[in-house]
Amino acid sequence: MAKDKKLVEAITSMETDFAQWYTDVVKKAELIDYSSVKGCMIIKPAGYAIWEKIQKELDHRFKETGVENVYMPMFIPESLLEKEKDHVEGFAPEVAWVTHGGLNPLQERLCVRPTSETLFCDFYKNDIQSYRDLPKVYNQWCSVVRWEKETRPFLRSREFLWQEGHTAHATAEEAEERTIQMLNVYADFCEEVLAMPVVRGRKTEKEKFAGAEATYTIEALMHDGKALQSGTSHNFGDGFAKAFEIQYTDKNNKLQYVHQTSWGMTTRLIGAVIMVHGDDSGLVLPPRIAPTQVMVIPIQQQKDGVLDRANEIREELIKMGIAAKLDDSDKSPGWKFSEQEMRGIPVRVELGPKDIAAGKCVLVRRDTREKIECVLGEVAQKVRELLDTIQKEMFERAKAHRDEHICDAHNYEEFKIMVNNRPGFIRGMWCGEQKCEDLIKEETSATSRCMPFQDQDQISDVCVCCGKPAHKLVYWGKAY
Amino acid sequence: MAKDKKLVEAITSMETDFAQWYTDVVKKAELIDYSSVKGCMIIKPAGYAIWEKIQKELDHRFKETGVENVYMPMFIPESLLEKEKDHVEGFAPEVAWVTHGGLNPLQERLCVRPTSETLFCDFYKNDIQSYRDLPKVYNQWCSVVRWEKETRPFLRSREFLWQEGHTAHATAEEAEERTIQMLNVYADFCEEVLAMPVVRGRKTEKEKFAGAEATYTIEALMHDGKALQSGTSHNFGDGFAKAFEIQYTDKNNKLQYVHQTSWGMTTRLIGAVIMVHGDDSGLVLPPRIAPTQVMVIPIQQQKDGVLDRANEIREELIKMGIAAKLDDSDKSPGWKFSEQEMRGIPVRVELGPKDIAAGKCVLVRRDTREKIECVLGEVAQKVRELLDTIQKEMFERAKAHRDEHICDAHNYEEFKIMVNNRPGFIRGMWCGEQKCEDLIKEETSATSRCMPFQDQDQISDVCVCCGKPAHKLVYWGKAY
Repeated sequence: MAKDKKLVEAITSMETDFAQWYTDVVKKAELIDYSSVKGCMIIKPAGYAIWEKIQKELDHRFKETGVENVYMPMFIPESLLEKEKDHVEGFAPEVAWVTHGGLNPLQERLCVRPTSETLFCDFYKNDIQSYRDLPKVYNQWCSVVRWEKETRPFLRSREFLWQEGHTAHATAEEAEERTIQMLNVYADFCEEVLAMPVVRGRKTEKEKFAGAEATYTIEALMHDGKALQSGTSHNFGDGFAKAFEIQYTDKNNKLQYVHQTSWGMTTRLIGAVIMVHGDDSGLVLPPRIAPTQVMVIPIQQQKDGVLDRANEIREELIKMGIAAKLDDSDKSPGWKFSEQEMRGIPVRVELGPKDIAAGKCVLVRRDTREKIECVLGEVAQKVRELLDTIQKEMFERAKAHRDEHICDAHNYEEFKIMVNNRPGFIRGMWCGEQKCEDLIKEETSATSRCMPFQDQDQISDVCVCCGKPAHKLVYWGKAY
Repeated sequence: MAKDKKLVEAITSMETDFAQWYTDVVKKAELIDYSSVKGCMIIKPAGYAIWEKIQKELDHRFKETGVENVYMPMFIPESLLEKEKDHVEGFAPEVAWVTHGGLNPLQERLCVRPTSETLFCDFYKNDIQSYRDLPKVYNQWCSVVRWEKETRPFLRSREFLWQEGHTAHATAEEAEERTIQMLNVYADFCEEVLAMPVVRGRKTEKEKFAGAEATYTIEALMHDGKALQSGTSHNFGDGFAKAFEIQYTDKNNKLQYVHQTSWGMTTRLIGAVIMVHGDDSGLVLPPRIAPTQVMVIPIQQQKDGVLDRANEIREELIKMGIAAKLDDSDKSPGWKFSEQEMRGIPVRVELGPKDIAAGKCVLVRRDTREKIECVLGEVAQKVRELLDTIQKEMFERAKAHRDEHICDAHNYEEFKIMVNNRPGFIRGMWCGEQKCEDLIKEETSATSRCMPFQDQDQISDVCVCCGKPAHKLVYWGKAY
């Protein structure tokens, strides 16, 4: 039994040290490994399989809205990166530079893409001529590089995987509509698939993307009360179009600038899933994102008929469209339980000779640890329902936790007390001046997360920082 | 009518200039565009959709053999690249070097991966301890960079997309088995899905991968008689394991080196499909790889009921699991036909008011141009069968073309005449000396493509070059 416990004991408890708990989970659940390249991670099969599920689901949702996938070069010539002033200021300090190709120095440095607005603009400039060529609704799945100083697996690494959508439209209205549409695709995906509630809203000027007219964001709350920006959607207006001369001939034969958007989600989502749903036994995966949804674990598998019956159950589950596996390794059942829990597999089926004799087995929920007796022959149906229940309840629990960690601050005193004593989102009015945002960040480490769409309460009429008249509600919080 | 012809007239005929024909097709079928980064291409939606089909099919076949996907960093520290002597010699002259991260010079240069053997070895070194950890059968989908001097879309570019499998095994036998297994996965995929016959065989020492013990290859023949290496699978033996100290404890508690393999296929396959199946009207896609399999084109679509009936047909096709689209744009039918042909869509359905009145429509095969009358109501069933027929016949035609372009050379005189007059594979015996390979290449530009598995004819008993005794049959040819 002591040996069976080893896996769980290897992780720090959340209460003791949340950051260490996180690091332990990503390692022990075998999601990542560190590499010889500082700040770059190796995504192992268990981690990559989650990313594949995310990709498949998001890509399907994208295509339903008319998105087409493409692939742009991974390099950006320095002169191209520099074409849009705000953009280059935002990214140049954190890019990796290629200076040599083979044995020869390059005539012009190339950066490894930190994001691909400039490449798409350079392409659209030639590809778009007439209103008939619009809209362009392109996306690519790729990796990008940002030379971060401090890195953490999934949350911030020098290289990460993502998708980046880049669109061009005839009108400002259409661009704004697409920006919001994609934010909603992201939000729905997070809530329906990752069981992770999000706040949808707009970033302040200070926090918006380099070169954007407006940045919209979805913000999730982690178990430790910190916020995580989980997806962003940017409306560029015609700023990039003017910098890159992307014009089309409209129906009246007049030259017009296009209006553009971009939007992205990254492997950071895997970090979000860990920190929203995980517990002291490891990962807890929502069924819709779990590469393996059910692990069948035989007890006394050496006894006659046990493995056969366990295999039958696995096959019944697969026939029902459930991703089920059987652990018939020579480890002890206790060790197998720990592994299944560490990896966050939503349901396990326990089955031994006594169960078979009694015509039943035991289903165990990963999220609540609840044990449910189940008649053999009804397993697949029961598990199907159970997975739906787990998905639904995981979202409800995460939402309840999130809602319990939102509080209202009416003035700066309240704000500072809350920041220190009640981790979570703080709702507070804001006058619109960046100096208040700067001061709050400097003194409390909290940042403005977003100005929410749905939540329009005027919780007071003065700025939570300076006390001057204020009309904008902001969600504030410490963030990853 | 003159206008309708424009699209086709825009491409050079194959006979006139095959290389120009190829370039015209990739541009006019909108597969790629050139980018501001020399030697790097932009893969447009029509091209990327083919790659997505290739990925989906190959990935499925990989996973059926137990492959798991992972993601490794895109950078390799110089010292890591240098660990295996032959490998670094093969790749160092053609890699891109990152020397700066943000504003600071790096302590050690990083190359952008040209291939990831060294990264996988560095990872396996720590991840593999015991025989219980074996085998590792990992793969990644990513882009790689090789600083080529001359580039051509899909066939040779500085950055390209591929998959690279990297495995580690307990025994030499198991590694060899996996190497051959994956070559067969590649060959079956090419023949069954891309309708492209291949010769399976082994590369000579001169042509094998840098650092490999043995390289196996599949070689396809393009329409112009040149060969294209379409996929390779390498057995490394324990060479990399020794260079990287990748050892495991066997069942007798003894330390052993692992045996490794790697295998890859790239976006070059799209180039192969173009050059095997294309014609003077553009691309011809085998149905199993065509993102759009059927284009429904209405005639006199402004007439009552035509668009409705065309839409119904599209929906019937989709219900049958066929990727069908309707072209209801305001272009002329002739122009739509040209576009559908240029893009290689396997079948088009023509439907006008007279057809509807007669209760029929016309199906047109892209590959043979054959027109087939079809009763409305039987369209989906008929198209389903037609797509299967097209797939089968495209393979048979490509195979017949390939077989017609294989000839046997018994001595160097014959060989030289054939190289100049009969483009294709030349079968010729080889003594095993590299100096014969070198001479043939220097004097004729033909290279040894492979020593075939299946084809064991002893067409003579002397080397086709030097006349000395020879036992190895080699397929020779000019290659892309």
